[in-house]
Amino acid sequence: MSATPAAARSPRRARRAAPLAGGRFAGRLAVVERHRDDALRSHASAAPRLDQAVRYSALSPGKRLRPLLVLTTCEAVGGDWRVALPAAAAVECVHAFSLVHDDLPAMDDDDYRRGRLTTHRRFGEALGILAGDALLALAFHELTCLAERGVAPARVLEAVRVLAWASGAEALVAGQALDIAAEGRRVTRDAVTAIHERKTGALIGASMALGALAGGAPAARVETFGAAGMKLGLAFQIHDDLLNAGSTLARLGKRAGTDAARGKATYPRAVGSERARADAAALIAGVRGVVGTRSARTRPLLALIDAVALRDH
Amino acid sequence: MSATPAAARSPRRARRAAPLAGGRFAGRLAVVERHRDDALRSHASAAPRLDQAVRYSALSPGKRLRPLLVLTTCEAVGGDWRVALPAAAAVECVHAFSLVHDDLPAMDDDDYRRGRLTTHRRFGEALGILAGDALLALAFHELTCLAERGVAPARVLEAVRVLAWASGAEALVAGQALDIAAEGRRVTRDAVTAIHERKTGALIGASMALGALAGGAPAARVETFGAAGMKLGLAFQIHDDLLNAGSTLARLGKRAGTDAARGKATYPRAVGSERARADAAALIAGVRGVVGTRSARTRPLLALIDAVALRDH
Repeated sequence: MSATPAAARSPRRARRAAPLAGGRFAGRLAVVERHRDDALRSHASAAPRLDQAVRYSALSPGKRLRPLLVLTTCEAVGGDWRVALPAAAAVECVHAFSLVHDDLPAMDDDDYRRGRLTTHRRFGEALGILAGDALLALAFHELTCLAERGVAPARVLEAVRVLAWASGAEALVAGQALDIAAEGRRVTRDAVTAIHERKTGALIGASMALGALAGGAPAARVETFGAAGMKLGLAFQIHDDLLNAGSTLARLGKRAGTDAARGKATYPRAVGSERARADAAALIAGVRGVVGTRSARTRPLLALIDAVALRDH
Repeated sequence: MSATPAAARSPRRARRAAPLAGGRFAGRLAVVERHRDDALRSHASAAPRLDQAVRYSALSPGKRLRPLLVLTTCEAVGGDWRVALPAAAAVECVHAFSLVHDDLPAMDDDDYRRGRLTTHRRFGEALGILAGDALLALAFHELTCLAERGVAPARVLEAVRVLAWASGAEALVAGQALDIAAEGRRVTRDAVTAIHERKTGALIGASMALGALAGGAPAARVETFGAAGMKLGLAFQIHDDLLNAGSTLARLGKRAGTDAARGKATYPRAVGSERARADAAALIAGVRGVVGTRSARTRPLLALIDAVALRDH
């Protein structure tokens, strides 16, 4: 265990994440959170402390960008967003798993996330590891529930394939390994892009691909949305890097300026802040182009993409 | 990180696991290992050290009981065992994931497994955690490949459900959490059975259920085999406890007597060695009864069950 800095010992008020797009998704978010809570209850662990650690990790405050992307992409391709709820829950399980493991002492060694103690700081390191493991397994169980909502089994299997790829050694887990290996080194734009695409882009890409799959899109469209989501994820992470460099603890709910202190590979460090902002804007424009013209179907997804481009937290 | 005992610093010859059933499965095992190696290659990580850690963990010496159970159960219900290869690879991925995470300093803190350094001792703790994560995600990707071998998508989805359940907060991960929580306490037979069923029984049960699913068995038969596998897993773990208490490092490839030293919840500690042996024998007899009469189809599975009952390593 790491030494406990004074800041980590003083209680600090837990922050709810400020809602994306000014709260326009509040109704759907409530449905998502209820669905996730139900899923966790129906898979409650026989080990009570583990169950608490899983719930603490999964239900911690967050913007829920990934589940909202699943739902709005499903809608954008002409589907009913309620059908996609199990996929929305699944991607958030993977996201929560990755945060819990990334925070561990052997990794980023973080004491706080969103103003609350990280899972391993609250429940101990063993339960931190196990809660992450449990959330990753649960993601795949949740995903199979798409079939109960009328999604064809072959399509659900493709969703399992997409999520397994995005969570594994080729994508998310590789991103974390590359990120740790790059600490303290000078990195090029290509190297930091490779990290961000895997660590952040792959799961955001999977979120859009899963939404498209649940909404009945043809294979080529699923792939296009997956690739667009990867770009959106890269833009999201560039914004994150810019915020970490320029923000305060009060705004982020976690220590700001930590990337620089650790010598983390960040996009602005590789190319400068101005260029980072320009690249993020160009990526967002590309993603908007893939979604297409504004209509009743695409408006929620476009609003979400804009929220990523404009967020300040 | 734990302190490094002298024993951990001295090189020690890696042991291959002695084959189950006197080597009668050597041919199939070679096919399983080739299939697993191919799967790992086609999902090689972009992070080279992570890729090495994943391969080191997945291809470490072992009896491969679980993949062999998948194949022989598939055969016992009338299927072609080659069809079940992706499921065999998937259960071994989950098994490897659980060993790597269980060995971590925050868990059982083991330096050696089968005479080789554990993954985190060889690659560092961060890559130990990430290699386990990658193997769990890979398991689900592998499982979807059943569909490419002609297993109906709805049946493959059921396999995903079974494996996610067996790997998660209700089963394997719960077993590890309960096991850690029980250390140093007096445990009853019921409590240690609850641990062993989850930590060992669930994945061995899933192996038989997946084999039955791949082999085309009806739902009721899949369930029966899954339940029998859970019993087989309990018997296997009781044997493991007996071996740990009475064996030597040279035979086990890991330190013997460690359960007692740590105050681990073991079955013999709860009921005594005689009773433990009798209970294991009764469980094995029950499992044999479920498989049914000896025939060309069931002979390999029955031989494997007998090997579990008679193993001395």
